Amino acid sequence: MRHASRTVRVALVGFGNVGRTFVAHLQGSYHDALRREGVALRVTGIATRRHGIAIDPRGLDARSVLRQVKAGRSLAELHRGPSCATSRRFIETVPADVLFEVTTLDPRRGEPATTHVRTALKRGLHVITANKGPVAHALPSLRALARRRNRLFLHEGSVLDGTPVFNLVERCLPGVRVLSFRGTLNGTTSLVLSRMEDGRSAREALREAQRLGIAEADPILDVDGWDAAVKGCALAQALWGIRVPPSRVLRTGIGRITRGDVRRAARSGECLRLVVRGARVGRRARLSVRPERIPLADPLAGHEGDSALVLTTDLAGEIAVVERGGTIDQTAYALLSDLLTIVRSTRGAKR
Amino acid sequence: MRHASRTVRVALVGFGNVGRTFVAHLQGSYHDALRREGVALRVTGIATRRHGIAIDPRGLDARSVLRQVKAGRSLAELHRGPSCATSRRFIETVPADVLFEVTTLDPRRGEPATTHVRTALKRGLHVITANKGPVAHALPSLRALARRRNRLFLHEGSVLDGTPVFNLVERCLPGVRVLSFRGTLNGTTSLVLSRMEDGRSAREALREAQRLGIAEADPILDVDGWDAAVKGCALAQALWGIRVPPSRVLRTGIGRITRGDVRRAARSGECLRLVVRGARVGRRARLSVRPERIPLADPLAGHEGDSALVLTTDLAGEIAVVERGGTIDQTAYALLSDLLTIVRSTRGAKR
Repeated sequence: MRHASRTVRVALVGFGNVGRTFVAHLQGSYHDALRREGVALRVTGIATRRHGIAIDPRGLDARSVLRQVKAGRSLAELHRGPSCATSRRFIETVPADVLFEVTTLDPRRGEPATTHVRTALKRGLHVITANKGPVAHALPSLRALARRRNRLFLHEGSVLDGTPVFNLVERCLPGVRVLSFRGTLNGTTSLVLSRMEDGRSAREALREAQRLGIAEADPILDVDGWDAAVKGCALAQALWGIRVPPSRVLRTGIGRITRGDVRRAARSGECLRLVVRGARVGRRARLSVRPERIPLADPLAGHEGDSALVLTTDLAGEIAVVERGGTIDQTAYALLSDLLTIVRSTRGAKR
Repeated sequence: MRHASRTVRVALVGFGNVGRTFVAHLQGSYHDALRREGVALRVTGIATRRHGIAIDPRGLDARSVLRQVKAGRSLAELHRGPSCATSRRFIETVPADVLFEVTTLDPRRGEPATTHVRTALKRGLHVITANKGPVAHALPSLRALARRRNRLFLHEGSVLDGTPVFNLVERCLPGVRVLSFRGTLNGTTSLVLSRMEDGRSAREALREAQRLGIAEADPILDVDGWDAAVKGCALAQALWGIRVPPSRVLRTGIGRITRGDVRRAARSGECLRLVVRGARVGRRARLSVRPERIPLADPLAGHEGDSALVLTTDLAGEIAVVERGGTIDQTAYALLSDLLTIVRSTRGAKR
């Protein structure tokens, strides 16, 4: 162990696939990774929409929590202390140092996620989200609030899961300005189009994505390009400080693409993927989402659930990052990554 | 301007394509990027093997320096002060804060680059290199020396040019262990094989790579896989702290690949690329370099001079970074990137 052990208390609002995977790993690999940093994690609360709310200052048992939701039972059975009826009350009272905001996406308004983040920051919690909504809709004000409270608001997982995007630009490309980007940022549509290349139906492939836990709770948000559009807006906010409402993004989904289209692209050595494009034009950002034919040697032409982002920069040429596979484990890692950023930045400081 | 302006003095040992490109950009885009960080750069010395040595404490004029080497004349004509005959003496006396080590690669011993780095660190200079030799051969001892002197030894450009690799793992993948990697780390062979796909000869393509300034001074180091092998060793050192002498890497170059081989791969929807593979096996690292057939949808199957690295990790799945194009500008940016790391880490501190 490199540092004296300290306990970090985390609370989750939202407990879908990402949150559950994170909690599941706390018994194994994440436990070890945190121990190497001298940290023990205690999950002190979980608030869900359909499985109730549980707070336990002494720490919730990961196995019990997962067993409970798997059996379709309420987490409230694990709750200790004064009752807590709403997520707002939960965020205001749960004894925690860090809040994970992992509710589902509302592309049009980014709520209730943004309010959750704001409430937690106001209270003096660090906040980590894998939800692109608050980033796309309110990044500057949330960052400013975090700064005022001397806390961190981190969101690496909101684009490309645990594959570094925001941190890559901020920490590894000093002096560089990103001029434009293009990306396959929605793993579900990549998987669907990739499966269609193998002759399977879109519907069948979508069911597979849901089984894998990578599709949005409402998969129409994937198919119609909403998820991709919000991610494009999150990038425009973080890279350029420019807010584009997701409803303003020129957006065409993959709903009308047939197996014939996919086959025709393949015959020319190309593949169809849903591509988000963003470019800075003066003080504005131009964003679009639409299916494009991509030469196979291009970084965006991954297979299965691969996601990729190509950044065109002023000083460093074109740089791409690729998330291979796009599993739920890679999304969960984003939460750990942000958590370790907080652990390292607060090392030596009082809680 | 965000910070009070301060002057950082840099000296270069070696003045090939990378150094010259860096200096050329100092008048334009790099000047602006540095100014945004509150820094003015002064090049106080350049030591070359064939174009003499120049030191000027007041700063060498970039234009004069470039004109001089372009005309095949000695830099010594620009020298001011007591004479300086050797690179060793140069490193020991040049009035500088940072040394750029950008001499050519000696794969077998990593010299004289390693000695240059060591001499500069001992003297209390920060050192930046784009040379993989010192990283592959001596990273732990150079790092330890830098730490003792409270200076930085940075080498982002030694693999994949300015595309983040070492910084990516160190700064953006907290808690993660890299289990293995595979990469197309030599832009010259990628360009040659890519041109052969278009029906051109290897010799012709190699001449193009030399014209672009991306081939090693002795291009046999590219073709025979030496450059790729040393980069594999540099990664093994940085990722795992394991030293593998480049001569121990199983190594097959691309010298025997024919246009027929390239065409046959293309017919199966694949391309041939020179691939470096590394895997950690207990306390040892297994490294190899050889031409492989790669499916076109794989991140390693770039086109032209693209380079790519795929990291297989324990917690974050597979992550790839791709350097598109592979121009000399991208190598030069690596020097700027490391320089800005030093600027930021010493902000507020005395020189």
